[in-house]
Amino acid sequence: MNKNINAAVYERHGNPAEVLRVESQPWPKPAADEAVVKMRAAPINPADLNAIEGKYPGRREVPAVPGFEGAGVIVELGAGVKGLTNGALVILPHNIGTWREALAVKEVELVAVPEGIEPVHAAMLKINPMTAWRLLHDYVDLKKGDWLIQNAANSAAGRAVIQIARELGYKTVNVVRRDELIDELRAEGGDAVIVDGENLRHEVKDATSNAPIHLGLNAVGGESALRLANCLAPGSTLVTFGAMSLQPLKIPNGLLIFKDLRFRGIWINKWYDNATMQERMDAFRPLFEMAKRGLLKTKVEKTYPLPEAKAAVTHAAQGKRSGKIIFEFSD
Amino acid sequence: MNKNINAAVYERHGNPAEVLRVESQPWPKPAADEAVVKMRAAPINPADLNAIEGKYPGRREVPAVPGFEGAGVIVELGAGVKGLTNGALVILPHNIGTWREALAVKEVELVAVPEGIEPVHAAMLKINPMTAWRLLHDYVDLKKGDWLIQNAANSAAGRAVIQIARELGYKTVNVVRRDELIDELRAEGGDAVIVDGENLRHEVKDATSNAPIHLGLNAVGGESALRLANCLAPGSTLVTFGAMSLQPLKIPNGLLIFKDLRFRGIWINKWYDNATMQERMDAFRPLFEMAKRGLLKTKVEKTYPLPEAKAAVTHAAQGKRSGKIIFEFSD
Repeated sequence: MNKNINAAVYERHGNPAEVLRVESQPWPKPAADEAVVKMRAAPINPADLNAIEGKYPGRREVPAVPGFEGAGVIVELGAGVKGLTNGALVILPHNIGTWREALAVKEVELVAVPEGIEPVHAAMLKINPMTAWRLLHDYVDLKKGDWLIQNAANSAAGRAVIQIARELGYKTVNVVRRDELIDELRAEGGDAVIVDGENLRHEVKDATSNAPIHLGLNAVGGESALRLANCLAPGSTLVTFGAMSLQPLKIPNGLLIFKDLRFRGIWINKWYDNATMQERMDAFRPLFEMAKRGLLKTKVEKTYPLPEAKAAVTHAAQGKRSGKIIFEFSD
Repeated sequence: MNKNINAAVYERHGNPAEVLRVESQPWPKPAADEAVVKMRAAPINPADLNAIEGKYPGRREVPAVPGFEGAGVIVELGAGVKGLTNGALVILPHNIGTWREALAVKEVELVAVPEGIEPVHAAMLKINPMTAWRLLHDYVDLKKGDWLIQNAANSAAGRAVIQIARELGYKTVNVVRRDELIDELRAEGGDAVIVDGENLRHEVKDATSNAPIHLGLNAVGGESALRLANCLAPGSTLVTFGAMSLQPLKIPNGLLIFKDLRFRGIWINKWYDNATMQERMDAFRPLFEMAKRGLLKTKVEKTYPLPEAKAAVTHAAQGKRSGKIIFEFSD
């Protein structure tokens, strides 16, 4: 085990394809409360690219290894580690940098994945499906049969929202930008799938038989967020968790004053920081149950080995993709 | 008592100075559960003008009598009225039209005013001081010594916020547009008074010794609301209750996602509709106590008799005023 490992590193913030390089580092040594994890899979999320660019809150000291999520296998235990065993598949925390072949992590920061979930699948449960879980639990008290509405329904988080909502008995209006997605998202479990546009509000009314919608989930911002807000019933909440349009929300005062709409946001990394291990596991347990049944799979467009990190981030930065770009590590 | 009364009436929505006229109506007859109130004072609020223009939610059927607030004296009781007596000063509900000399109102909609509060004073407690009370109670759990920040601090609601916050032991940062107001609002009890501008955030930090501010109160909208939001600590709430700039809120996504700011609004008329009489009185009681001590007085620029309604609404529509325009009725 005393060989070197590869790690993706940036020494200054900037365009990921320019500043990222792969370097050789010594095999990690675990402290008493740490385990060494050999990485198996780590996706490239938009937040990873933003962090490298220096456009993400909590800018890291450089040099730094990027990567907010991933999964790997435990291959070495510090003397004080009690709850984990060698060979266990674990999910990595967001604050350590997953784009490297191996790393030492505190036991309390690792989440053990039950049997029957593949590493690539496990590697992408922590951000998007967990965000979806929180969106459906922390903002509005929904009852079975209630409707919610989301834009960017075809994103990884959007698809997780569809599947989790279905599991919990909620109905989803899914707003997308392209016709081709309608059948696909219906097949995924979406109750209504509607192409975004000026007429959205009326189409939503038709699709839901004018049922009140008390929760809106916004990953786009700008005009799309406003159209979503206009579909909500008085007293409802719109939760923002992404900003694909890069446009701010523009909220007419009447939506706040007269319609009593509430505008919130969620940052899943911050949720983890504030959550107890009990709270984290209360959410991971049902997500793992769903994953074992083949749900909550994030589509992958292409897999890269870590030494091709530059090509991988270049690919990930392209707008039109059919799925995530991920790093897979050899067994 | 069988004479006629004057009432301000509009038969179509439009510019108040054009569509409003004063007509003679028969003296009101109370139903069994009603009392006849002889009006004493009723202010002209911006919402009244918007309602006449047809720009206020819940557009009334015309012909209609405007006026969302006011106070009067009970002069006749329906056979079933038990809790009120002739001669009592009462505050009128928002949904009936106060710009008339007398009207019959359900007993349950009237709030009796204790001795020692003048009719003009009582007539302006229901909207602005009550809004201020709710703003300081319903959104953020403040402790004594905590700071809050508001724009439009010189408005009737803003001054009520200053006085009530002081009463409750909270500290206020008061944002205004004009230098001349600094001394005046400090004298009113404002802990910090700052002229709005690009440098607001730093001036607020200096004035509060960088204390976290968890509640922002916005009656302006647009850029001013955003500057206010930027003064708030993570996890804070900005409550909108007015829109003097007529500009929507423009919320950068990061304020929602990373800073976890929460954006709410309040419509005081709706609060009344949803509140029990117990809840209303729990708020009116301390407001009355303060009023008896001479607090929560709304400044009046000019008093008009009802027959001069056209001149009064024209005056009220002017931007630069030193106080409210109100109708006073002869004894």
